[in-house]
Amino acid sequence: MSILIRGGTVVTAEQSFRADVYCENGTIVAIGDGFDAPAGSQVVDAGGMYVMPGGIDPHTHMELPFMGTVASEDFFSGTSAGAAGGTTMIIDFVIPAPQQSLVEAYRQWRGWAEKAATDYSFHVAVTWWSDQVREEMGVLTREHGVNSFKHFMAYKGAIMVDDGVLLNSFARAQELGALCTVHAENGDAVFHLQKTLLEQGITGPEGHALSRPPQVEGEAAQRAIAIANVLGAPVYIVHVSTEQATQAISRARAAGHRVYGEVLAQHLVIDESVYRNPDWQTAAAYVMSPPFRAKHHQEALWAGLSSGGLQTTATDHCCFCAPQKAAGRDNFTKIPNGTGGIEDRMSILWHNGVGTGRLTPNEFVRITSTNCAQIFNLYPRKGAVQVGADADLVVWDPEGTRTISAKTHHQNVDFNIYEGMEVKGVARHTLSQGNLVWTDGELRTVRGAGRYIDRPCHPPVFKAIERYNELHRPVGVDREVATAVTP
Amino acid sequence: MSILIRGGTVVTAEQSFRADVYCENGTIVAIGDGFDAPAGSQVVDAGGMYVMPGGIDPHTHMELPFMGTVASEDFFSGTSAGAAGGTTMIIDFVIPAPQQSLVEAYRQWRGWAEKAATDYSFHVAVTWWSDQVREEMGVLTREHGVNSFKHFMAYKGAIMVDDGVLLNSFARAQELGALCTVHAENGDAVFHLQKTLLEQGITGPEGHALSRPPQVEGEAAQRAIAIANVLGAPVYIVHVSTEQATQAISRARAAGHRVYGEVLAQHLVIDESVYRNPDWQTAAAYVMSPPFRAKHHQEALWAGLSSGGLQTTATDHCCFCAPQKAAGRDNFTKIPNGTGGIEDRMSILWHNGVGTGRLTPNEFVRITSTNCAQIFNLYPRKGAVQVGADADLVVWDPEGTRTISAKTHHQNVDFNIYEGMEVKGVARHTLSQGNLVWTDGELRTVRGAGRYIDRPCHPPVFKAIERYNELHRPVGVDREVATAVTP
Amino acid sequence: MSILIRGGTVVTAEQSFRADVYCENGTIVAIGDGFDAPAGSQVVDAGGMYVMPGGIDPHTHMELPFMGTVASEDFFSGTSAGAAGGTTMIIDFVIPAPQQSLVEAYRQWRGWAEKAATDYSFHVAVTWWSDQVREEMGVLTREHGVNSFKHFMAYKGAIMVDDGVLLNSFARAQELGALCTVHAENGDAVFHLQKTLLEQGITGPEGHALSRPPQVEGEAAQRAIAIANVLGAPVYIVHVSTEQATQAISRARAAGHRVYGEVLAQHLVIDESVYRNPDWQTAAAYVMSPPFRAKHHQEALWAGLSSGGLQTTATDHCCFCAPQKAAGRDNFTKIPNGTGGIEDRMSILWHNGVGTGRLTPNEFVRITSTNCAQIFNLYPRKGAVQVGADADLVVWDPEGTRTISAKTHHQNVDFNIYEGMEVKGVARHTLSQGNLVWTDGELRTVRGAGRYIDRPCHPPVFKAIERYNELHRPVGVDREVATAVTP
Amino acid sequence: MSILIRGGTVVTAEQSFRADVYCENGTIVAIGDGFDAPAGSQVVDAGGMYVMPGGIDPHTHMELPFMGTVASEDFFSGTSAGAAGGTTMIIDFVIPAPQQSLVEAYRQWRGWAEKAATDYSFHVAVTWWSDQVREEMGVLTREHGVNSFKHFMAYKGAIMVDDGVLLNSFARAQELGALCTVHAENGDAVFHLQKTLLEQGITGPEGHALSRPPQVEGEAAQRAIAIANVLGAPVYIVHVSTEQATQAISRARAAGHRVYGEVLAQHLVIDESVYRNPDWQTAAAYVMSPPFRAKHHQEALWAGLSSGGLQTTATDHCCFCAPQKAAGRDNFTKIPNGTGGIEDRMSILWHNGVGTGRLTPNEFVRITSTNCAQIFNLYPRKGAVQVGADADLVVWDPEGTRTISAKTHHQNVDFNIYEGMEVKGVARHTLSQGNLVWTDGELRTVRGAGRYIDRPCHPPVFKAIERYNELHRPVGVDREVATAVTP
Repeated sequence: MSILIRGGTVVTAEQSFRADVYCENGTIVAIGDGFDAPAGSQVVDAGGMYVMPGGIDPHTHMELPFMGTVASEDFFSGTSAGAAGGTTMIIDFVIPAPQQSLVEAYRQWRGWAEKAATDYSFHVAVTWWSDQVREEMGVLTREHGVNSFKHFMAYKGAIMVDDGVLLNSFARAQELGALCTVHAENGDAVFHLQKTLLEQGITGPEGHALSRPPQVEGEAAQRAIAIANVLGAPVYIVHVSTEQATQAISRARAAGHRVYGEVLAQHLVIDESVYRNPDWQTAAAYVMSPPFRAKHHQEALWAGLSSGGLQTTATDHCCFCAPQKAAGRDNFTKIPNGTGGIEDRMSILWHNGVGTGRLTPNEFVRITSTNCAQIFNLYPRKGAVQVGADADLVVWDPEGTRTISAKTHHQNVDFNIYEGMEVKGVARHTLSQGNLVWTDGELRTVRGAGRYIDRPCHPPVFKAIERYNELHRPVGVDREVATAVTP
Repeated sequence: MSILIRGGTVVTAEQSFRADVYCENGTIVAIGDGFDAPAGSQVVDAGGMYVMPGGIDPHTHMELPFMGTVASEDFFSGTSAGAAGGTTMIIDFVIPAPQQSLVEAYRQWRGWAEKAATDYSFHVAVTWWSDQVREEMGVLTREHGVNSFKHFMAYKGAIMVDDGVLLNSFARAQELGALCTVHAENGDAVFHLQKTLLEQGITGPEGHALSRPPQVEGEAAQRAIAIANVLGAPVYIVHVSTEQATQAISRARAAGHRVYGEVLAQHLVIDESVYRNPDWQTAAAYVMSPPFRAKHHQEALWAGLSSGGLQTTATDHCCFCAPQKAAGRDNFTKIPNGTGGIEDRMSILWHNGVGTGRLTPNEFVRITSTNCAQIFNLYPRKGAVQVGADADLVVWDPEGTRTISAKTHHQNVDFNIYEGMEVKGVARHTLSQGNLVWTDGELRTVRGAGRYIDRPCHPPVFKAIERYNELHRPVGVDREVATAVTP
Repeated sequence: MSILIRGGTVVTAEQSFRADVYCENGTIVAIGDGFDAPAGSQVVDAGGMYVMPGGIDPHTHMELPFMGTVASEDFFSGTSAGAAGGTTMIIDFVIPAPQQSLVEAYRQWRGWAEKAATDYSFHVAVTWWSDQVREEMGVLTREHGVNSFKHFMAYKGAIMVDDGVLLNSFARAQELGALCTVHAENGDAVFHLQKTLLEQGITGPEGHALSRPPQVEGEAAQRAIAIANVLGAPVYIVHVSTEQATQAISRARAAGHRVYGEVLAQHLVIDESVYRNPDWQTAAAYVMSPPFRAKHHQEALWAGLSSGGLQTTATDHCCFCAPQKAAGRDNFTKIPNGTGGIEDRMSILWHNGVGTGRLTPNEFVRITSTNCAQIFNLYPRKGAVQVGADADLVVWDPEGTRTISAKTHHQNVDFNIYEGMEVKGVARHTLSQGNLVWTDGELRTVRGAGRYIDRPCHPPVFKAIERYNELHRPVGVDREVATAVTP
Repeated sequence: MSILIRGGTVVTAEQSFRADVYCENGTIVAIGDGFDAPAGSQVVDAGGMYVMPGGIDPHTHMELPFMGTVASEDFFSGTSAGAAGGTTMIIDFVIPAPQQSLVEAYRQWRGWAEKAATDYSFHVAVTWWSDQVREEMGVLTREHGVNSFKHFMAYKGAIMVDDGVLLNSFARAQELGALCTVHAENGDAVFHLQKTLLEQGITGPEGHALSRPPQVEGEAAQRAIAIANVLGAPVYIVHVSTEQATQAISRARAAGHRVYGEVLAQHLVIDESVYRNPDWQTAAAYVMSPPFRAKHHQEALWAGLSSGGLQTTATDHCCFCAPQKAAGRDNFTKIPNGTGGIEDRMSILWHNGVGTGRLTPNEFVRITSTNCAQIFNLYPRKGAVQVGADADLVVWDPEGTRTISAKTHHQNVDFNIYEGMEVKGVARHTLSQGNLVWTDGELRTVRGAGRYIDRPCHPPVFKAIERYNELHRPVGVDREVATAVTP
């Protein structure tokens, strides 16, 4: 149960340095120079490589029941594919049906996730509102290690919530010290445009993008931020894909608000032209929300990541195979929304980020792991290479190359949105809980080896916010109302 | 029925020049130099004064039934007070109750307005949605001269509409060539904050402002613009009172969208400190929505007006006397929202705008009259000093002064929000339909002399927008869906 | 000497209406319906056409001595070509050499311009600073009808001025009630980049664009505005070609500053790819400053024009033939900077602006004529269709088409940057001083018929600015300095 | 030579945790729980306190010869005062006179600094340009551990450089892998306004602020950024004091540029009203550049620090006593510019930042120490609490309070700009090189104990920038210039 990573360069969000890393029982126990491997230890040669915190993907949907089908990737296959790409933890989503108990849904998902190969945690979606929901939010934070709640501003008629619910839920979460996250698209606008496009005879996947123009996302991001802001609450916008949403986040941060933005790897490198592919099946494979965008949005997202205006990267990994996508062959609104990529995120970001000089290796660690761990209060157990941290590590080969393909990937889906891209920078070895789960091209993950990770509420930034709010509380005016004033 | 205005300087939105103006039968028939007054003509000496288009107030609520009472100012008293201040036309609002027929409501308001002393027109509010509403929007534009529809994003549980209604109504209006206007405040957020404040024991008028912070307006303005934008429709934001909303409009305009913003005279000169007045009655008298703001917002509004980023000025004239305001003495949410000012708008804007060098006299005409006439398609019948235009004119004395007071004003309300301010720049004479309705301090308006003015749809800017939209229509991809693709 | 334009639709910046226009002795004397042509009058049939103010081009360089050669277009050929395109007035530039007397240079240019076919005026450049310059600025405004001064922030080592000169000149102009204009490019940066590129072996026209990236313009625009702003002076930025400069102007206007921006027609439709044309001669023909830009800048410029954030359009007409351009065949810094287009501006703007729904016909008039006339204090003599205005008119055929080509144009240059573009919307007849100088494809301009037009200082907006500055003067603190304080 | 800090909470930029910290020979050698102090070790009780990296002040001017006098604080007294406030390192400035050898000046400053009590380093100013300067920049980086060069855009006629020098110096530094920093104020504008104000009879300290309005700083920041940007170089703006400069930095970062901003503690809490103090001596004591600003700028600066848009905090510590300030009693331009505060920075930032909920304790560490160490390539030797780092630490008492006063401070100046402010949060113990130099109110610094710290070039972010620039190099077009083309 011990392993020595020898000869590499440790890369963290803050620094890079030559060091060996020694782990026992799933934990990093020593970092230093010239260690001898204790008897019985495994030794990994990291010469010429980087030893980094394993990637954390804060946005996945394994085996999600959605749009009349179920995502093809399950918790075991999905976390395994992640491991093959250097990702050692996911935060997935519990999504209760409207009127369903949050705790009941949480238990359902916990059950499904037992097969996971690496560690995982759950955001819980608030898809409706009642006293019971309010109560159960408390139960989840106190008893089940949940510190973040998700809200869908899109998917009208299904899981979309209106501003009233956002206000209630954000206020409640603030009280609990939990972070609210939102899928920011104006669901009413999407619904209206879908209807109009179908009436105009546009039924193919191009309609998907046309029904969700950038303003639809920019608007909703702005609105979620404003709502959080009037409550003095922080907020986290998932899958920011547009210049508009990026700017909304920047404006809020420049006004002192605690707003976070997440970017999906695919939005950084794939553009909207995919929806005009003459092959329906190919075009449909790219249907996800928010959709791919015009190229200039990518520059805004990269700049957001390098400047710190956007903090995390994810995949929204949610796989549907061609026969599932085919449900929408006559009507784009019925194509299950989702694409895969958990296996490819780290390489895509390294190749296109570090390889192009947009990011330093330290910034790469920050946006693939450390920021996520800090925002969701997993740090330094996760997201760090330090003594005492979990031995969730990736030994990264900056010179290794790989051509991405559905033929060779480990994801349980019949299409790869990065098909044919050659990337430089690959996970050579991945450790989960101190075990080599991916090594030199061999996948050794174990069904059920992953653990559910509790995330406590009230991370440090909440304490600051609470102090600030206390000092900026509304104050009434003390006055007598003259009795002479009568209606 | 003829009148000669002699010796003045004609001031329009474009230019200033020495000229006499001769009117017959309610119309300007000649503009030139050294006219002799035909026999029987009245002569007005305009020496040293400016002859300008009468003010148009695009936002009034005469005798509005609202919050359990009825606004104290009726169409006769209100238009008369306007005339005393140099305003010769209003555009008031028909506000159907949810579920009420729009045409029925329109007829109701037309009946009330028959007593008006000067010309008037109506925006019609869309407060709910159904096929009937869609149908009646068409009837109103085709048969009743309505070319603008109003939407309330605030007043939850009463006349507020959600984004779904906005989308339907904006799309319908676009089809008809009519302009949509919005009251931009996030009604859900206001509702939430009202509840929270009351729970905290804040029941006085200061709670009104605290429940409607600037972001609540900025958010809604941004949202209305985004919604209009995805439909390719123009939009007009009423009573812009914040930097945030001003910036939302600027951003949209800088992206090429046709977005208009209206400013109330009172927001330019009064700030939020009024709500902390120790006298409840005084504080309550200032309760209106959006509320008065911190001082720095005023700079943004002035700059918007001088740069053309904001186009019109109004009053939202909606008067409630102290006994009416007293309905909310234990609960600020029950204080009827509204303040007066139709009589004071022109002087307030001249004194604080032209008098301070923020505006030229031509810009003053543009923002008090011409822009409004153009946006609402009344130009050049209104908003111009040119042959053929209605003889709705004001002879403006730039050296005249007046101390504003409820004791001397002609408005039917027991409070003046500008009480005690001394302004330089006053209406010496006002002509409505070529008649002197205000002259040297004497009010001569006639009950019922005002006419309802039809406003046709499809002003020039709509033709441009339609062309643009046609060229930017969504286009589908022609493809065969392989028969092999099956769900 | 009289002419009747019958049956057209008069289009001004404010409105469109059916009317005949009757002119005598170079002036519009009547506008109305159903005029009979007096005996001896010429009659122009304007049926189905628009009667608009002739275009004013505020930025031309006829027969300019520059970069070791002289622009090929002279005042006669240039104004004639303008007339063929519907432009009836130019404002050219007097550019004294450093150390040269401004008045002397002014006289030189006046001499050259005597051959002009249509009316003209002059901006005078301030290319150096001394007491004499300060004095002569006064002479030019008082005695020679000059109300605008130009400053080059580029062309280091030639006519570039530093910030010290800008400050002195802006302050002096402010005193005189004259407007300052600037060519905004950071000349030091251009110089540095030119040197670096040449060292790297990049000698072709592509080096021209690479040496003047968008930031170089954005920076200088921002700087000129800041300098004007600290002095409380208005400023006009010529040939705005970038998003960055447009935004700098917008930010300033949104802060209440009087800042104006001019756009060249060519920047709206031609992009930077021309510099990579494999044919050197073609690439060189497009060398002008600022250079053509990436396509996305065009959207910002169009939006600026339609929203009013940018006010005027021009050509910077400055023609050099291929043998002249060849001076730089081994070194792009020696290619004479300049392109033509005075004949094409109006059609290019109509076709790409009105024809695409970006502009209304009224907005077209505003940006091609009226705004320019107002900003440079020529209005309403120029820029208006009204009684008393100069009979400088264009009868515009919105259905007429033309394919632009150097083979058919009237410009004295061997290349047309719009070669091969087909435009819809052409000048059918052009009147200068009431004479048909262009009619149905026939050019009838007369050498020397143009007049120099005086432009008085202190237009209305200056009066407002002066008032504002007076109220915001710096005020000292009255205090005794304690005698005990000694160095 | 060993010391154990027992019972505290270690606070770094990333995390907080209970730990003892053991140091030997000036270095941290162990961090952990429940350490026993080796025999002979000193023990510091840190119960209830935070153990943080000592503050680094990247902007001081000890014993600077300036404006005809010499700053009163020398390297010993200044670093000692810093230690009393929890600051353990400064980066001061070598400022060669124009025409002076950079290396010679560097040696001069090294000599003066030998008396320093804590570690220090030097930025070197580029105040003129020549081949020698270019050469010496290389010498300084290669042989003297200098990795940053400073440029003054203000102080016309003294040490101000023009854009040409900025371009040469930025390009050279980029080549060397060194960072350029700028004092961003438009010196020409300041000079012009100074002259104008004096002519208007405004001679007191209020003239200082009036001659340096916010736009003067915003303009220069924007310009420096644009210049860096066209060269593909990073840039660091010292003492950002305005919303305008903050926004210029934000815009650049949002476009992907590597731009950094530094804030002075005093600009966060003191506003421009100080210059209108009726007491000349008091008003003069606040004269520094950039001057104190209107209050709303402070909000922008705080938000910049909490959002990461601004990265470091400093003091620009540069002390002049009353008799020195008196040199300008008749002319504000002769008042030596500078204020003190090295002793107070940490408490001012804690009290007003952490105490108000604007910053977390970790963010406090980041902006007072870690970011500075990373940007100037001192990390992790400085700015970190980790094994191997220098034992430059502060034991911070979050409950301790202090009333700031010139009567009790350790700074060698007769005035304290924070006089009378009570702060909560004080340095209880400060360790420099593992020695207690400040403990429980006792100052134990040793003259000359401080070491000069080399700072190597090419920190990680430079490698990324170099990669990016390589991929975005200008590329020429391969073409034959037709021989037919002749001038």
